[in-house]
Amino acid sequence: MPTRYALVVEYDGRPFVGWQRQDTGPSVQAALEDAMQGFCGETTRVQGSGRTDTGVHALGQVAHVDLDKAPDSDTLAAALNAHLRPQPIAVLRAAPAPEDFSARFSAIRRAYRYVIVNRRAPLTLEAGRAWQIGPALDDRAMAAAARHLLGHHDFTSFRASQCQADSPRKTLDQITVTREAERITVTVAARSFLHHMVRNIVGSLVLVGKGKWQPDDIAAALAAQDRRAAGPTAPPDGLYLIGVAFPAPHEKLGSMSPT
Amino acid sequence: MPTRYALVVEYDGRPFVGWQRQDTGPSVQAALEDAMQGFCGETTRVQGSGRTDTGVHALGQVAHVDLDKAPDSDTLAAALNAHLRPQPIAVLRAAPAPEDFSARFSAIRRAYRYVIVNRRAPLTLEAGRAWQIGPALDDRAMAAAARHLLGHHDFTSFRASQCQADSPRKTLDQITVTREAERITVTVAARSFLHHMVRNIVGSLVLVGKGKWQPDDIAAALAAQDRRAAGPTAPPDGLYLIGVAFPAPHEKLGSMSPT
Repeated sequence: MPTRYALVVEYDGRPFVGWQRQDTGPSVQAALEDAMQGFCGETTRVQGSGRTDTGVHALGQVAHVDLDKAPDSDTLAAALNAHLRPQPIAVLRAAPAPEDFSARFSAIRRAYRYVIVNRRAPLTLEAGRAWQIGPALDDRAMAAAARHLLGHHDFTSFRASQCQADSPRKTLDQITVTREAERITVTVAARSFLHHMVRNIVGSLVLVGKGKWQPDDIAAALAAQDRRAAGPTAPPDGLYLIGVAFPAPHEKLGSMSPT
Repeated sequence: MPTRYALVVEYDGRPFVGWQRQDTGPSVQAALEDAMQGFCGETTRVQGSGRTDTGVHALGQVAHVDLDKAPDSDTLAAALNAHLRPQPIAVLRAAPAPEDFSARFSAIRRAYRYVIVNRRAPLTLEAGRAWQIGPALDDRAMAAAARHLLGHHDFTSFRASQCQADSPRKTLDQITVTREAERITVTVAARSFLHHMVRNIVGSLVLVGKGKWQPDDIAAALAAQDRRAAGPTAPPDGLYLIGVAFPAPHEKLGSMSPT
């Protein structure tokens, strides 16, 4: 019997085509599978909780993998990190998981953060890691607009045309907009998201922040159930998968608490 | 009469040999002087408040420069930023300054932050921007040790051999050690610092954090007035010049409040 492991993974999305293995360039999934091969010689399939896009970062991606060998968890994490060097991917922790645990299907909550730096000067230390916007944004109007999206809705207006989800109906459990000096952070949480949903929401909130839209215009865009009714897609630079939660008895395998 | 300008400058120190112009590689000072030349055709000398070393970052470096032309401050900042691209240097703001203002000699307080990430996994998004230390550090012991350094002392034990300051006596106005999850931040402020002083202090505090030194051993190292009595030099990666303060009537030209 193989042993299943849950991994919590952090990465800088810039050099990757995204989480998922693709022919078009290096992916986080392929890098982890190659590291697994390098460590124990096994060909594995690493399954992630969320398929982050090109240039999107993760502070708490969760993945699972099955290994024929049964290494100690700390040894596995350290060995993977050694094999991943110098790529900007780190296994923060590894833990044995029951075989009914799936990083993808067991997850009950995923949280993302989107970081906007609202200043005229270009980014230096945070280049590629935030969205720099020059004109002053009204974060209170953005927060008011965001509240219209809370709860269960048809999010067709915020869904990428290439999205493969069965249904456009999702439940947004949390959406907050906070400002600290020049930094505006949008935090969202839901069981699952449509493709580009967070970036399309942020793109629309920025229209509100600039005063081009009123907060109520977000409600109208949502009600339209038409991608063309909402704002543009925000760049991937500012987006971070910050946590994934699992229900009992798997809650300790996640990167955030389920409550 | 030329017009003097004060600039607040942010940069990622990784690609530079440091603030100061040198023959050995690209410097922040040379990049700013080249941008000035590109914008208005003038050969200038940009004077900074602090000479950060190779790989050291700045969130609030202050500099001054004299220009024969007298551009509007916002125009100057925007033009310099355009000429600085794609280098990771940004002029956060520019302001006209009186001719008795010197970014270097008028400054009455400089503040630095040193960031340690205390975890086993290597850095990804913060590679080159923090010091990753695997073994668990006792931040309370580090804070207790740091208090021995507050005030006016002979800091010979924490001074680089190549330091050119007239006197090893300095007054440390602030030194705090705080932890937030895996992140330990050392914040220091003084009118001025010796060469490598912050990194040498942090290197010694880490010995305390690891339990190799007791907090009181810092007092003994200080009293020894001998570089060999203190700990190793911490890497530049985690060091940030965060602010420079000036007394009235120049306080608005600084990047932090003088009080």
